[in-house]
Amino acid sequence: MTRRPVRIVTVGDELLEGRTVDTNSGRIQRALAGREAPVLGVSVVPDEAAAIATALDATAAGDLVFLTGGLGSTPDDLTREAVAAWAGVDLEQDAELASRLERRWRARGINLKPSFLKQSDVPAGLEPVDNPQGSAPGLVGDLRDRTLVVLPGVPGEMAALLPLVLERLDARGVLPPAAESCLWRTAQVAEVTLVEACASVRDRWPGLRWSWWLTEWGADVRVAASPAAAAGDLAAAAAEVDRILDGIVFARERRTLPEAVLELLIARGRTVSTAESCTAGLVAGRLTDPAGSSAAFRGAVVAYADEVKTARLGVPAELIAAHGAVSREVVLAMAAGARERFGTDHALALSGISGPGGGTDAKPVGTTWIALDGPGGAHARRYRFPADRSHNRRLAVAAALDALRRVLEAGDDVSPWHQVDSWRGDR
Amino acid sequence: MTRRPVRIVTVGDELLEGRTVDTNSGRIQRALAGREAPVLGVSVVPDEAAAIATALDATAAGDLVFLTGGLGSTPDDLTREAVAAWAGVDLEQDAELASRLERRWRARGINLKPSFLKQSDVPAGLEPVDNPQGSAPGLVGDLRDRTLVVLPGVPGEMAALLPLVLERLDARGVLPPAAESCLWRTAQVAEVTLVEACASVRDRWPGLRWSWWLTEWGADVRVAASPAAAAGDLAAAAAEVDRILDGIVFARERRTLPEAVLELLIARGRTVSTAESCTAGLVAGRLTDPAGSSAAFRGAVVAYADEVKTARLGVPAELIAAHGAVSREVVLAMAAGARERFGTDHALALSGISGPGGGTDAKPVGTTWIALDGPGGAHARRYRFPADRSHNRRLAVAAALDALRRVLEAGDDVSPWHQVDSWRGDR
Repeated sequence: MTRRPVRIVTVGDELLEGRTVDTNSGRIQRALAGREAPVLGVSVVPDEAAAIATALDATAAGDLVFLTGGLGSTPDDLTREAVAAWAGVDLEQDAELASRLERRWRARGINLKPSFLKQSDVPAGLEPVDNPQGSAPGLVGDLRDRTLVVLPGVPGEMAALLPLVLERLDARGVLPPAAESCLWRTAQVAEVTLVEACASVRDRWPGLRWSWWLTEWGADVRVAASPAAAAGDLAAAAAEVDRILDGIVFARERRTLPEAVLELLIARGRTVSTAESCTAGLVAGRLTDPAGSSAAFRGAVVAYADEVKTARLGVPAELIAAHGAVSREVVLAMAAGARERFGTDHALALSGISGPGGGTDAKPVGTTWIALDGPGGAHARRYRFPADRSHNRRLAVAAALDALRRVLEAGDDVSPWHQVDSWRGDR
Repeated sequence: MTRRPVRIVTVGDELLEGRTVDTNSGRIQRALAGREAPVLGVSVVPDEAAAIATALDATAAGDLVFLTGGLGSTPDDLTREAVAAWAGVDLEQDAELASRLERRWRARGINLKPSFLKQSDVPAGLEPVDNPQGSAPGLVGDLRDRTLVVLPGVPGEMAALLPLVLERLDARGVLPPAAESCLWRTAQVAEVTLVEACASVRDRWPGLRWSWWLTEWGADVRVAASPAAAAGDLAAAAAEVDRILDGIVFARERRTLPEAVLELLIARGRTVSTAESCTAGLVAGRLTDPAGSSAAFRGAVVAYADEVKTARLGVPAELIAAHGAVSREVVLAMAAGARERFGTDHALALSGISGPGGGTDAKPVGTTWIALDGPGGAHARRYRFPADRSHNRRLAVAAALDALRRVLEAGDDVSPWHQVDSWRGDR
């Protein structure tokens, strides 16, 4: 199959007024990565039929066009109408969609207004795809020599619909198949460091396609086969990358760090608890993101105030007075306290200065101690995160989860930080 | 001054491959919000001179055009060259910029390469604006009947240059002043319900500009003055909206729900703790998003396992056996336990079935009990959230924080849910 050019049009006043950042186009681009479907452009247009039509006019016959946004039931949502008008087709009510909408609103105790029913209107020629998270269906089909995919703008709904829509496109033979590729997901390592680490492999197998990107957890690397590479190149290069990145990879496929950790906990029959100061429950919150986490996660103490560290985790007040709340001694005592009180195999503890205030010369903003207590003993490491409050907290969550991942993977007698120390210089 | 249409062109291969999310265009849009300078479109184009020229051709005479990206010193950075070629002007080296660049690289111990000096090239007709954070200056000026603003793509540098550039534009009289507007931020209420609630006000003052959008916390409404409205219309309509939305608005300006709650806690000299099952620390995590939260937030117990609810919060095991962990009785006992153990004025407790498993006919997925204990007594409410695991958890966090907000705002003898009950039907 030949290449299939892709254009993305995101619709919404809120995107143009900067109230909302467009994350949808990036998600579509990542979902298409590895296909011979290059994204030639992204346009962001207001909730106006004329602007949507202009953006559609700027696409070319043969394009695969993704439109997101403007599928709600409020008066400013008019993407359905705009697409129908641009294509010169009618909007037709889909009876099944209409009755599903009616049930949905009734279940929420909201009386159906006629205006809500516009979400069951479908431009003739497109077919609806059920939205697992919301009321606006996706729409897929061919109009004016383009393949159109119309998706809601709410990021969670868009993300839930996207794989279903790609399946539909694959079934219709619209998308070139994905090229073979390998993925490495890492936490705690900078993107540039990964790029450098893989430089020799890139030089050796130049025909492959490399990409790197930042994630919520750290950085990912992907290598894909390409027509320029010989058969076997991908496997040979991947084996070399495996060797180089040994120990710092938390997943080789699309899995989040909490999913990887939870899977390891369950496979090993282990339980975990947390004691959190600076992250204030975010490690526990992320550990319980995956369904089924209650099999391994028992509970947490958020000890934001120092007296709480003493009263609820048994950290001696003198220890805090002597070393400060952000110290190796205190974070180890927090971890031991949580492990004992919750009766878990492992306990993670975090105490740090996220900022913007609270930093000193000796302990600048970003200084964060993380401890992991478990059957093989207790370990602690100091980090110096370089970012602002919210990002420092996110980096701490990823570092803590990744430490637990490392011990679960490599065994209780392994330091959670031996590997990462050789990659980072921020102790 | 008349309206000034704005178009944004962001340049960068990384944006088109989904590796990087374009946050720059959102930042520019927010900086222009309220001005009569509507952003008519955003295009994302690759690092190719032809693509940049095509995007510039798609702008109109009279536009204010922001270009970001491609101002670095590597071979793939060619926005300067592309702009000069598009406008048919020469690139001229700016001697002052060149000597500043030279000093900058020398201070970093890096020998100046000739290629670095391309950052001192300026398309004739534009003037440089010093970059406080990096080496690439901003460029401002008029070319081909457009006002062009060229900014680096690195988000931190772009953000630092933006206010300087807007000052320059204001000094040149290029930008209209900000239009008056009012904002209402709500939690717990559906966007469609807000639209309906404001329908009578919209009908009465038709000249105003309305917008609604979903947020992490709930839904926002904004009304802006426009040339079609009479003086005083905005104030009159706003007073009416204030009356209609009384009690469900958590902020009238750009503030998050945790920021609003924290400000109220500090103003009232109150402290808070949380006891969380289904949300597993996320309420505590969000409450501590704002800097300074340690003045009011003390700590939390995440009681994911039932034995933790008993051992760490004093919830009688018989109560759990009799009513189930997701019940009014248990969530009230969790709140009382947290309030007592942390010695706080208020305590929030949450217990629910987030899904995908665990639902029953009597307690379907989404069923969530939230309790608030405080000086005025204890209250609990059942919610039935309609979404998937991750979204149900987010809805629970917003509902809990908003309940606390309500009591802090209206007084301890007020039910946290009286107002919201009349807006929702999902008990």
